[in-house]
Amino acid sequence: MKQEQLILHERPNGLPDENTFQFKEVEVGEANEGQVLLKTLYVSVDPYMRGRMSDRDSYIEPFQVGEPLAGGVVAQVVESKTDQLEKGDIVRGNLPFQEYLVVQPDSVSKVDTNGLNPSVALGALGMPGLTAYFGMMHIGEPKKDETVVVSGAAGAVGQIAGQLAKKAGARVVGIVGSEKKAAYITGELGYDAAVEYKKGDVQQQLKEACPNGIDVYYENVGGEIGDAVWPLLNDFARIPVCGAISSYNLKEGEQDIGLRIQPFLIKSHAKMQGFIVGDFADQFGEAYKFLAEGVSNGELKFEETIKEGFKTIPDAFLGLFTGENIGKQLVKVADEE
Amino acid sequence: MKQEQLILHERPNGLPDENTFQFKEVEVGEANEGQVLLKTLYVSVDPYMRGRMSDRDSYIEPFQVGEPLAGGVVAQVVESKTDQLEKGDIVRGNLPFQEYLVVQPDSVSKVDTNGLNPSVALGALGMPGLTAYFGMMHIGEPKKDETVVVSGAAGAVGQIAGQLAKKAGARVVGIVGSEKKAAYITGELGYDAAVEYKKGDVQQQLKEACPNGIDVYYENVGGEIGDAVWPLLNDFARIPVCGAISSYNLKEGEQDIGLRIQPFLIKSHAKMQGFIVGDFADQFGEAYKFLAEGVSNGELKFEETIKEGFKTIPDAFLGLFTGENIGKQLVKVADEE
Repeated sequence: MKQEQLILHERPNGLPDENTFQFKEVEVGEANEGQVLLKTLYVSVDPYMRGRMSDRDSYIEPFQVGEPLAGGVVAQVVESKTDQLEKGDIVRGNLPFQEYLVVQPDSVSKVDTNGLNPSVALGALGMPGLTAYFGMMHIGEPKKDETVVVSGAAGAVGQIAGQLAKKAGARVVGIVGSEKKAAYITGELGYDAAVEYKKGDVQQQLKEACPNGIDVYYENVGGEIGDAVWPLLNDFARIPVCGAISSYNLKEGEQDIGLRIQPFLIKSHAKMQGFIVGDFADQFGEAYKFLAEGVSNGELKFEETIKEGFKTIPDAFLGLFTGENIGKQLVKVADEE
Repeated sequence: MKQEQLILHERPNGLPDENTFQFKEVEVGEANEGQVLLKTLYVSVDPYMRGRMSDRDSYIEPFQVGEPLAGGVVAQVVESKTDQLEKGDIVRGNLPFQEYLVVQPDSVSKVDTNGLNPSVALGALGMPGLTAYFGMMHIGEPKKDETVVVSGAAGAVGQIAGQLAKKAGARVVGIVGSEKKAAYITGELGYDAAVEYKKGDVQQQLKEACPNGIDVYYENVGGEIGDAVWPLLNDFARIPVCGAISSYNLKEGEQDIGLRIQPFLIKSHAKMQGFIVGDFADQFGEAYKFLAEGVSNGELKFEETIKEGFKTIPDAFLGLFTGENIGKQLVKVADEE
């Protein structure tokens, strides 16, 4: 069966563009004994994928030119030659981006959607939800009446992170890039205030929104936003560093230059910690249970921005860097059968 | 009795100079009931004092213009009108810089010099030694065969910090500003290698000295030295941030600009933590015992650079920023009686 695959055509230098991606028609055969044939339903595009497009040392190996891009995928089993999965099962995995694919059942895990759209397994109950949980609860550790600032606050991770801090009794301020996102986080999500960074002086806005200083800064974006936060840190502040999207599209040889943080960390006796979700792999169960409970009883809210069609993946990905998405950005590739 | 006091004459803008300091003759009377009269023996000059000379928000209140500078002092009781201290006792305290002064006994603590020069209470067995201990052992947590880099490695804190890491079984590399200091840390202190930052490309030198990357970076200096370290951090690196001396003399309105650290912290899942010794006040006993044992059995070595005479305090202080001192910089004000 002929079908589409998305490959890395050329490593981007700076912002990815049309030359970065290429669609390729490939043949997918039947499942052999012990395998399953999957139909891709949803593909997740995430900022961290930009790092894999460059050939540099990172926490995850680079994509190879001419090879498929890969990431979070929710798929349905359309043919099964193993006892581990049945036809019709919904699964999730870190898989190449293509419409159909044959895999070993061990490379995916079954998703119990519990009446929810299966896309939730790529967002609130997937990697972004877990990332929010561990960064906020294990590094940020917000306490009652503390002030927590979340950047990228209306994004896939930020929307969950802020709500977890609210649940812990903190005052939560989100930094976002549009009025629509500001309305979403203060309305739907219950954040106490929003700062729109495109409206000018971020530090002044933060001062007004955080009259008692900042105890936890959940860092999703880096760059000038972080610079505006450092002088407002309270004693013993905690800074989980989850992402630095502002630096992901630097060109070869460019460096991310701004305020050095050491003087601020000393003055505030503050702690700053970079992490990826895999650092907490042994505690996924606990976190998943917590998030699933919140989602199913409606306490934990989330949005998804969904593009339709396999060919929209590059656009959906690029939109992450212009802030198009509210909540989790996904691409819907096919309907469930 | 007329005697000298050192006051803050003018807040420095940038590097302190002759206008920053002023000596003032003041009258010191006799001790009243319940008080002691002290004769200052040694005065400690430390980089953190520069922060107190500016009128800005910090972890410690600023010095006041026209009022005496203050800091670590070792003194001898020359007259006692309390049962708590006897004439001849050696004490230490955070005290105004003057030749003689009358204090309440509760504002000082008695020093048991154990045959050592009492100046040790301001260095290896004082604030710098404790700072080295908590930063290295409680935040850095070096493990056997890890690589530990210490900046300001021949300074009051650095000379102790590196030896503690050696004791923990780590490979220790010190960054210093002269050949003499390099010889001191690799010879006397047993560091495995020295990097002389004035000899050019610090990152290249560090790469050669740290073929397995950097697991702990004990940050004393900040600035370009830190920038050179970030790309070499290993997974799960720890960075105790003790000082950032390179930024202490920025002028009004100048900012400390360099590499933003967020991308490096994410890539390396690294932790960076600012601290001051007082954060660990409840554990001083444990640390002091550990350090005192090392000093008395000769395992823990240290140097002191001592200027003579109360009037040399400004010079001794300024020398900290040009790297004049090896080990702890002190001023000897008077002999014991």
